[in-house]
Amino acid sequence: MTSARSADHPVYLDHAATTPMVPAAVRAMTDIFSTVGNASSLHGSGRAARRRIEEARESIAADLGARPSEVIFTSGGTESDNLAVKGIFWARRDADPGRVRILASAVEHHAVLDAVEWLEKHEGAQVTWLPVDELGRVSPQALRDELAVHADETALVTIMWANNEIGTIMPITELAAVAAEFGVPMHSDAVQAVTHIPVDFAASGLSALSIAAHKVGGPQGVGALLLGRQVPCVPLLHGGGHERDLRSGTPDTAGVVGMAAALRDATTNLDSRAADLSVLRDRLIERVGEIVPDAVLNGPVGSARLPGNAHFTFPGCEGDSLLMLLDAAGIECSTGSACTAGVARPSHVLTAMGVEAATARGSLRFSFGHTSTVADVDAVIAALPQVVERARAAGLAGVGARGGNR
Amino acid sequence: MTSARSADHPVYLDHAATTPMVPAAVRAMTDIFSTVGNASSLHGSGRAARRRIEEARESIAADLGARPSEVIFTSGGTESDNLAVKGIFWARRDADPGRVRILASAVEHHAVLDAVEWLEKHEGAQVTWLPVDELGRVSPQALRDELAVHADETALVTIMWANNEIGTIMPITELAAVAAEFGVPMHSDAVQAVTHIPVDFAASGLSALSIAAHKVGGPQGVGALLLGRQVPCVPLLHGGGHERDLRSGTPDTAGVVGMAAALRDATTNLDSRAADLSVLRDRLIERVGEIVPDAVLNGPVGSARLPGNAHFTFPGCEGDSLLMLLDAAGIECSTGSACTAGVARPSHVLTAMGVEAATARGSLRFSFGHTSTVADVDAVIAALPQVVERARAAGLAGVGARGGNR
Repeated sequence: MTSARSADHPVYLDHAATTPMVPAAVRAMTDIFSTVGNASSLHGSGRAARRRIEEARESIAADLGARPSEVIFTSGGTESDNLAVKGIFWARRDADPGRVRILASAVEHHAVLDAVEWLEKHEGAQVTWLPVDELGRVSPQALRDELAVHADETALVTIMWANNEIGTIMPITELAAVAAEFGVPMHSDAVQAVTHIPVDFAASGLSALSIAAHKVGGPQGVGALLLGRQVPCVPLLHGGGHERDLRSGTPDTAGVVGMAAALRDATTNLDSRAADLSVLRDRLIERVGEIVPDAVLNGPVGSARLPGNAHFTFPGCEGDSLLMLLDAAGIECSTGSACTAGVARPSHVLTAMGVEAATARGSLRFSFGHTSTVADVDAVIAALPQVVERARAAGLAGVGARGGNR
Repeated sequence: MTSARSADHPVYLDHAATTPMVPAAVRAMTDIFSTVGNASSLHGSGRAARRRIEEARESIAADLGARPSEVIFTSGGTESDNLAVKGIFWARRDADPGRVRILASAVEHHAVLDAVEWLEKHEGAQVTWLPVDELGRVSPQALRDELAVHADETALVTIMWANNEIGTIMPITELAAVAAEFGVPMHSDAVQAVTHIPVDFAASGLSALSIAAHKVGGPQGVGALLLGRQVPCVPLLHGGGHERDLRSGTPDTAGVVGMAAALRDATTNLDSRAADLSVLRDRLIERVGEIVPDAVLNGPVGSARLPGNAHFTFPGCEGDSLLMLLDAAGIECSTGSACTAGVARPSHVLTAMGVEAATARGSLRFSFGHTSTVADVDAVIAALPQVVERARAAGLAGVGARGGNR
């Protein structure tokens, strides 16, 4: 099998897992690295660090339709999700012990899913998993039906903006309007949506929204929770009282400045980049249909889907085998599902959509980003027939290690 | 008043708040910034990221006398402290509902203090604040007396290795031996101790130990909890199951590599650097005694104190006034206490040591680090007489903003 690129420069089609840092973010961070300053210190160096952080906060707020005071810096998407889900649950339950219900979509990322399950197991939460249709969408009517019965006992609603595996965009504004109508706060994990489709916090009507820097061209280890001023939330990390007393810990000056730079770069170019990514995505979908006729595209098409996401099932294949064979051919992608110690588990997203477990295991996600080119698509198309053939013939057992790969 | 250095290059004597990054850490991080890879991804780029993280884990473990599997990466000292205190509390209480007591020193950093207070208020913990002597030390006998009565109902003990304000080094090995004798896990916030004095996790006998990268020449936003394999701990952040399932979230590849580089640099040079810092510290203590004869050194002297810490009370002064006047003279230091919205609060550390509240407010911390020189000490000595005179004359009201400045 020929390699699509050298081992040092593989074809990287796993931007939904993490995307390369943009030069503006690297520059911004390395500039900070030569300074010193704890933003809590009162002297000149401390005030300079504080100023950089507040400028980053204002920039991020402007790019996402939020007020600066609504931006709470965290260590990433997972922390933002945990803070929103647990923090709002605790605060709402503390105010009214009868509010212990959480309404969550069945296709959430593990950072929400596992946080909700922990609240159920450890904190007495009652959970309603909102079903999705065959394209992975929660219907506003289903949310309305639940809230019509359970609003008084509901602590929060949490529904992701766009799905990390299959790229489905939720009708988030309609869903948020339903939650608002019943006076229940709603959180959305927007980690995959931000910079790929327009995200405006104020216009969305949401109470809370999670983002992660390394999905948008910024550094790993940094993120933010956008949180309305009036939304009650108990901190996960106590201490010096940073971030509106909601998230203690010395702020990561370089990290938040890098995140702001990346977000500015990506939101400025959002429309043109989304158009470019859609072209690559649709070219891949079309060509895969030609060369592997029984391949199935999971999730919606066109503007109902993230511009950079293509997710297929290849009947008769194990996703992990496909992934490893493509990797050997210099093409990097993802099965789109978490694996545990060598045993492939079918994706909870696909099973929630009604896909059979056996079929779900033969899935592969390609995700495009700011460095992707037509040549990347063509490299996949060149390698895929042989890879699928081998995966089918071999019937290899899935391999892998558990991970939080989005 | 003459400036000690230019405004762009002040005399920075607040290394305990945050210290400049060492070149090795900056180089290591910028190298990573040009790569891409989520350590949970199974393809080549993901495996390369995973390899870098595991090498960093091994390096950090080697430098701190731990096993690699005992290193749990976090977003910093505050998260490490919260994870240890809340996580061990929950796990021990879950295993035996009678275990709800926490024994904590009265001089902990707010990241421990506020986490413990939250457990008391929100989770039904019962707290015993262990008293300290006039030098800020918890006595092993006091711990023994508490455990002799309360061991069965105690979830954990938490006592910092060295105090962030006054530099007192605790008899941590003796304290850990007492906790171990009663079979109670003990955590220590070693954020200020690591790289300033020898810290060996295995030899300490501790169950858990917190560190922060930006206190040792690494980046902000990264830290670790060293946690024994057998110590039960409930995660704060749920999700993809990273870090032994104890701390989910995409690992910050650049951050942990930067932390490992800084730690290696600092531990390699620990003895010589500690000797250098002690010389600076003792020179400052001696000269302050000469020029402000009624100044009081708080905390112990010599090897019982962190080599880089000097903490004084200047009778008749407000600490914040001293800080601001020194800042105007180009010298950056800290009061060593958290302030709230313009109202100076006496340090809980000093009051626990028996210092009067009024006296405690006139305190100032100078903390040395890897960039400090004799010229820095001389600059303080040159500026101090005028500053103290003005602070006394003015009787200015304290100013400041609440912060988690260590």
